[in-house]
Amino acid sequence: MVWLGEAASIPRLLAKAVYGLPELHREELRGAKLIAVPGCMATAAIISLAPIVKASLIDTDRIVVDAKISSSGAGAHAPRLDLHPFRTYVIRPYEVVHHRHTAEIEQELGLLINRRVRVAFTPHAVDLVRGILTTSHTWLVKDVSEPDIWRVYRSMYGNEPFIRLVKDRAGFQRYPDVKYVIGSNLVDIGFEIDNRLGRLVILSAIDNLMKGASGQAVQAMNVALGFEETTALNQVPLYPV
Amino acid sequence: MVWLGEAASIPRLLAKAVYGLPELHREELRGAKLIAVPGCMATAAIISLAPIVKASLIDTDRIVVDAKISSSGAGAHAPRLDLHPFRTYVIRPYEVVHHRHTAEIEQELGLLINRRVRVAFTPHAVDLVRGILTTSHTWLVKDVSEPDIWRVYRSMYGNEPFIRLVKDRAGFQRYPDVKYVIGSNLVDIGFEIDNRLGRLVILSAIDNLMKGASGQAVQAMNVALGFEETTALNQVPLYPV
Amino acid sequence: MVWLGEAASIPRLLAKAVYGLPELHREELRGAKLIAVPGCMATAAIISLAPIVKASLIDTDRIVVDAKISSSGAGAHAPRLDLHPFRTYVIRPYEVVHHRHTAEIEQELGLLINRRVRVAFTPHAVDLVRGILTTSHTWLVKDVSEPDIWRVYRSMYGNEPFIRLVKDRAGFQRYPDVKYVIGSNLVDIGFEIDNRLGRLVILSAIDNLMKGASGQAVQAMNVALGFEETTALNQVPLYPV
Amino acid sequence: MVWLGEAASIPRLLAKAVYGLPELHREELRGAKLIAVPGCMATAAIISLAPIVKASLIDTDRIVVDAKISSSGAGAHAPRLDLHPFRTYVIRPYEVVHHRHTAEIEQELGLLINRRVRVAFTPHAVDLVRGILTTSHTWLVKDVSEPDIWRVYRSMYGNEPFIRLVKDRAGFQRYPDVKYVIGSNLVDIGFEIDNRLGRLVILSAIDNLMKGASGQAVQAMNVALGFEETTALNQVPLYPV
Repeated sequence: MVWLGEAASIPRLLAKAVYGLPELHREELRGAKLIAVPGCMATAAIISLAPIVKASLIDTDRIVVDAKISSSGAGAHAPRLDLHPFRTYVIRPYEVVHHRHTAEIEQELGLLINRRVRVAFTPHAVDLVRGILTTSHTWLVKDVSEPDIWRVYRSMYGNEPFIRLVKDRAGFQRYPDVKYVIGSNLVDIGFEIDNRLGRLVILSAIDNLMKGASGQAVQAMNVALGFEETTALNQVPLYPV
Repeated sequence: MVWLGEAASIPRLLAKAVYGLPELHREELRGAKLIAVPGCMATAAIISLAPIVKASLIDTDRIVVDAKISSSGAGAHAPRLDLHPFRTYVIRPYEVVHHRHTAEIEQELGLLINRRVRVAFTPHAVDLVRGILTTSHTWLVKDVSEPDIWRVYRSMYGNEPFIRLVKDRAGFQRYPDVKYVIGSNLVDIGFEIDNRLGRLVILSAIDNLMKGASGQAVQAMNVALGFEETTALNQVPLYPV
Repeated sequence: MVWLGEAASIPRLLAKAVYGLPELHREELRGAKLIAVPGCMATAAIISLAPIVKASLIDTDRIVVDAKISSSGAGAHAPRLDLHPFRTYVIRPYEVVHHRHTAEIEQELGLLINRRVRVAFTPHAVDLVRGILTTSHTWLVKDVSEPDIWRVYRSMYGNEPFIRLVKDRAGFQRYPDVKYVIGSNLVDIGFEIDNRLGRLVILSAIDNLMKGASGQAVQAMNVALGFEETTALNQVPLYPV
Repeated sequence: MVWLGEAASIPRLLAKAVYGLPELHREELRGAKLIAVPGCMATAAIISLAPIVKASLIDTDRIVVDAKISSSGAGAHAPRLDLHPFRTYVIRPYEVVHHRHTAEIEQELGLLINRRVRVAFTPHAVDLVRGILTTSHTWLVKDVSEPDIWRVYRSMYGNEPFIRLVKDRAGFQRYPDVKYVIGSNLVDIGFEIDNRLGRLVILSAIDNLMKGASGQAVQAMNVALGFEETTALNQVPLYPV
């Protein structure tokens, strides 16, 4: 299945491009001349699923990624359907089974285990300007406890400057929520084990204009050019907004 | 697992109550003295999944229901977390694995096939006042085409006054979206077959204060008392809002 | 000053048109063949100010009308500035001193007293899809009490089917607010006397797609054709939305 | 008229407090031990009106300040009326004639000309979390041109680090709008001359949680303690949000 027809037309460039996700491709990015910046929803899904896939904890043939995305993802030349009266007060599913970000997610997760991974991806437009939340419903293939999952994330992302693990039993922020990352380059990741069904739910929130677009591009450029990776990316989230 | 502790304390009443979903229990509702009105998210999930489960088209051990819900679902005595500055600009997952509506969904779907059904249910609060969208990710156990699915829905709901099947390849409303049901007692149902993965995605939108609450209560009462079922429920959706 | 250049080009038709505001022109509307439907903000301003102007209670040379308007007023072919990411989170003043609705307001209020009335009108786009609120700041030329103002409104609008006087010292709805008229053809009017400054503040809320547009057109048509004036206009407001 | 009963009870402290508006009281703030931070709407009104009042360009007996304010101004312990379902979709006038910020505005503007100034102030709650816009409708007492007004603002605020003059005939940002200041300590000021009526409309936008609250407090503290005035306040606005 061809996902991005236009890109396939310049295979010579494609072969040289590095996928601009520093958390997974930091070494290849150093000195890179051509960087392919990941899609916004792909970023949230890949970063939050990578440690779990790599640790072989879940059934990689049935990963459901249910995404919720804001209006700025459509860009400044959006169609009439994105005029304010039509784009407000929506929970609008679109490209329900063949969104092109699916290809990136399957490619990147598959590379981690050298095996095909199948992702059932469905996006929904919601009435916000910024922010993406991905809810990944996965099925465990091993008995795991909460501390096990924590360890998997910490061992892979313990030193990452932009990743936060979010999980609490009380208070305002018990799981990732776009409200807590707006304006920042952060990726908030959380999870919950559903012992009854053997399900592992993985949640991830980003600001699609930062970690989902230009913020991530700057981060990748910083790595490519040998700058401090967090240069120009230390904005704290604006809260409440 | 006990889902609703408080209800379990009055088993004598429970035994007499009819589940107030006319689309599934119309006959039992006629003359009923005690009606248990379904939960708002349960309503959207059950009505949209029932025909597919009944037709034995999907794996009933792995039904994912990813729900998006508005703020009015929390009622007028909501916690501080539901003050405007905190409840806006959210995509907030909550009760990620044990929401009490799960029990109703499993019970009602199971009754259709006299077998246990497992539903992996996860709700998300979004920044709207009214409306629920459920996205059900299911796996097909048979080869089906789009017309097959249409037939399944039409045969069960062809004469239902409040159910609309929504599916188009162009235009504004290609799938169910809360924007098109606000203020009405309608249930919009749509679907998409994912041939690549053998997935069937089922979408359903309601106004949680109407079909998800008082509208449905009136509808059930109309049936119970022998009134015309649509009495007082002919409001068309307010669009755009 | 020419306000509506295009209209001036068909004076023959203009002379025949009746201004479609039934509250002020009911008799002329009976049997009318050509009806000019008022602008949305003009409707809210004129209806709320008319009784006070007619009663000669205020300085008609310094009437400030500060209007707040929703996005649906711009229609379905709005400019790029009205795309969702740009049209949300705004309190955007526009046409600050020469909005064309000014002409209608001055004309209609002037006709009531056969004298020129000057209206300082300024609109602001706010982040809603429906609804207009006008806040009129006026200066009293007589000593009046609250009951006096009530009497002025009641004597003119006591029998109007779509006008509500809203004024309370406690509870949720103390003054007009668009939240309470959405989906209806109502005009909510309220006021407050500022004894310290001799100011009278007059507030008015309508749904701009109903009383501010098609609802009012239907109402005027009902009068013109001799139908019951409220035909097809009995929608109650949808609350909360 | 007593505006702030509680404050009047500690006159000894009041006498020592400096009004924490650096643009007007920078010299008194140096070394100050007690600082009274201005109200959020008062800040926007005073800063935008001060140059015009000081230059004696307008009738200071009839200044209308029509304010639009977001929900975060009510704080974290807001009443039930501020729950999300009730606080969304509003243009809600409140304290229409006696809001306590009136006193601050009159005091500060009066000090500039050693004469009483009368401000007709009316606030409206709108459906945003952050941001205030004030629209001041004033009447000119002299013949002035646009360049004259520009000169008045530039001569007073030409070197102010947080004040921007916003006025353009085309493009997205023709006047101040809260959308362009969110997350920053900026005050955007704009104006329009209404030659027809001799009116001068003055517009001002701030983020009420920054320049309208803690941002301004930090700015005043910086001056008081001899720090660089912009320390910790260089956040650029987050756009779009």
